[in-house]
Amino acid sequence: MSHSPGRKQENHKISRELFVLTYGALVAQLCKDYEKDEDVNTCLDRMGYSIGIRLIDDFLAHSAVKKCRSYSETADMIAQIAFKMYLGVTPSVSCRSAAGNEFSLILDKNPLVEFVEELPAERASLCYCNLLCGVIRGALEMVHLAAEVTFLQDRLKGDAVTEIGITFLRKPEDRKHKRN
Amino acid sequence: MSHSPGRKQENHKISRELFVLTYGALVAQLCKDYEKDEDVNTCLDRMGYSIGIRLIDDFLAHSAVKKCRSYSETADMIAQIAFKMYLGVTPSVSCRSAAGNEFSLILDKNPLVEFVEELPAERASLCYCNLLCGVIRGALEMVHLAAEVTFLQDRLKGDAVTEIGITFLRKPEDRKHKRN
Repeated sequence: MSHSPGRKQENHKISRELFVLTYGALVAQLCKDYEKDEDVNTCLDRMGYSIGIRLIDDFLAHSAVKKCRSYSETADMIAQIAFKMYLGVTPSVSCRSAAGNEFSLILDKNPLVEFVEELPAERASLCYCNLLCGVIRGALEMVHLAAEVTFLQDRLKGDAVTEIGITFLRKPEDRKHKRN
Repeated sequence: MSHSPGRKQENHKISRELFVLTYGALVAQLCKDYEKDEDVNTCLDRMGYSIGIRLIDDFLAHSAVKKCRSYSETADMIAQIAFKMYLGVTPSVSCRSAAGNEFSLILDKNPLVEFVEELPAERASLCYCNLLCGVIRGALEMVHLAAEVTFLQDRLKGDAVTEIGITFLRKPEDRKHKRN
């Protein structure tokens, strides 16, 4: 059997159900810890951020992607490579602004809520998957891309799809300028 | 593209790093919530139990395993199929009792602690991976096998390997008798 990078990657593959259920346990624990949904959301985002800044190394090591030349390429890479790698799904991507710095990742099916039927009435403002926003934000920051990442629609809240909005906060030109 | 069960299973495969980091966030949160390591351990075990009783359906659906005829077969299946499926590793199995109801799963490498360097001094009694014990216990209970599952050795605590002990509490004969 070869010791190619392909094989190494294969060894890291797991079924996602244990992850999905463990994530559910994490959210349930935070709901015990914090009365307000906003506090749970903030905590999930903060945890995700810490994960994202560590996960980016793994992503770059295993995905063999090249440097993105535009926000559009970056959004495509998050959807088609990162989501596929870590959640086993591929959201569709759409650009939401003429300036070309706002994108939506649209999930017809969100594996993270596979075992969640609906949010309890008293948790109507919970962003159940908010960890993902933090992960994306943290990972982008490590490749010098500041972004705001939030849920715009959520099937758990009755929306038709789940939509994650990514707004890149600086133009690549700005960053280039800053470096010089 | 075919819609065979094989394809369905492939779609459930993910890289484990996001899981491992999310699990770390869960343990860290519990360490904030509970002062005593024993309480964190109990909580992880209880969470794992809740996960195990749900995960068993997924396991049976995706593994296509047949009914085990002995504790030894069951232990092998946990190590060779379940661990491989959900954590991407295959522990070795050894029987620890003449009665044939005590087994050890021995992990040379534990992916769940991949990003953990060592336990902090004030957390010396923490069973970092105790969720796994609960998962195994819960899943076994759903196939009518009562078991005690605990960590016997842990590389995080300086042991040479990580060893999970499984003690089956009733003989298959007892269960058969009970059914009749």
